[in-house]
Amino acid sequence: MRTLYIANKNYSSWSLRPWLVLKAFNIPFEEKIIPFHDAKAWDEYKNIVPNKKVPCLIDDQTIVWDSLAIIEYLAEENPSIWPEDKLARAWARSASAQMHSGFQSLRNICGMNCGVRVKLNEITPALQNDLNQIDALWLQGLKKFEGPFLAGKTFSAIDAFFAPVIFRIQTYGLVVSDEAKQYVSLMLDLPEMKDWYRSALAEKWRDDPHEKDVLSVGQITLDHRS
Amino acid sequence: MRTLYIANKNYSSWSLRPWLVLKAFNIPFEEKIIPFHDAKAWDEYKNIVPNKKVPCLIDDQTIVWDSLAIIEYLAEENPSIWPEDKLARAWARSASAQMHSGFQSLRNICGMNCGVRVKLNEITPALQNDLNQIDALWLQGLKKFEGPFLAGKTFSAIDAFFAPVIFRIQTYGLVVSDEAKQYVSLMLDLPEMKDWYRSALAEKWRDDPHEKDVLSVGQITLDHRS
Repeated sequence: MRTLYIANKNYSSWSLRPWLVLKAFNIPFEEKIIPFHDAKAWDEYKNIVPNKKVPCLIDDQTIVWDSLAIIEYLAEENPSIWPEDKLARAWARSASAQMHSGFQSLRNICGMNCGVRVKLNEITPALQNDLNQIDALWLQGLKKFEGPFLAGKTFSAIDAFFAPVIFRIQTYGLVVSDEAKQYVSLMLDLPEMKDWYRSALAEKWRDDPHEKDVLSVGQITLDHRS
Repeated sequence: MRTLYIANKNYSSWSLRPWLVLKAFNIPFEEKIIPFHDAKAWDEYKNIVPNKKVPCLIDDQTIVWDSLAIIEYLAEENPSIWPEDKLARAWARSASAQMHSGFQSLRNICGMNCGVRVKLNEITPALQNDLNQIDALWLQGLKKFEGPFLAGKTFSAIDAFFAPVIFRIQTYGLVVSDEAKQYVSLMLDLPEMKDWYRSALAEKWRDDPHEKDVLSVGQITLDHRS
């Protein structure tokens, strides 16, 4: 049996991606959460994953400790994780890798915090630029591969890769184009996204650094967490 | 015929990775350089690659615009780009993805500038931490898969992924463990690495922002460029 180690569903954007792929493609796995505030759990986790990275997939003897690497690992046995069409697959891999290494301003300013709603103090030019680029990239995919998902008719790894952006748009009320808004709605309505969101809201843990990050960029206007 | 668009060999760390994989695995391609200072060339490049990203591989109708995506794209037809052994392959993919998204301090402070030698003003704790982590990761691979390359007997994508770190260690005189030093020497001696290095030295272009980056962190003690 595969085990996927993740951190808090409310905060851990990297964890969301492979979790979503495993769920959406019906790949059986056991989920284990290492909560950010729990120093003891992280200390024990070190015995399993020496560099303490999450997400991490353990599959028998194999340890895969990065979200994109986990997805490529799973895709070896489940090729439909990436689009079947060669052009769409190359596009999806490029856009996923761009998200993996880039869009730092969006990631730094708008940390994932699924359960709250935030009014940002300001939209900096760098944040707006990241948003514009993501919007343009989405529209490119939706147009090129005819939607409703980013690289075609069905959900694939590229949609998982942008899933944390979906929650960020919801949390921070970020303004995107109409076509992008439609895609956000589609994603928020996926059973797997709803499942993650419900669990995020149900978490009773609060992690100070993540909470402070939010307060440093805006005001919390709503908190849906239990 | 495939075309790989890259930027200056002296500076462009992202370009080095897929270029090295193409060369090391004897995959025919045409190389096109868009020099950083050449605004006109970048403007024309926009007609080929709308988001102006390098490296970018154009293969007939297919556009792949990220170093890791290019490598996965090439590996579909050339599986030996990743290690054959399943454990080694999962490890190599994880470590490559970690390099792709992380080690920001090393990347920000020690920008790739192949042709010069630099005395850093200081080794910040964050830089030292990145170096220690990379060193430990290399040693883990070298031990686990018995070297002399990071994931086994032969050069694979993971070595290409850390190739810019090899040049950074040389440029900034960064101190690493003896085992890591051996690996650095092995990599610097590869014909493909020598080929890139020679071309980097031969470039007559200087890019102000990249040159200023170096001067903001240290002093140039030697300049081997033509």
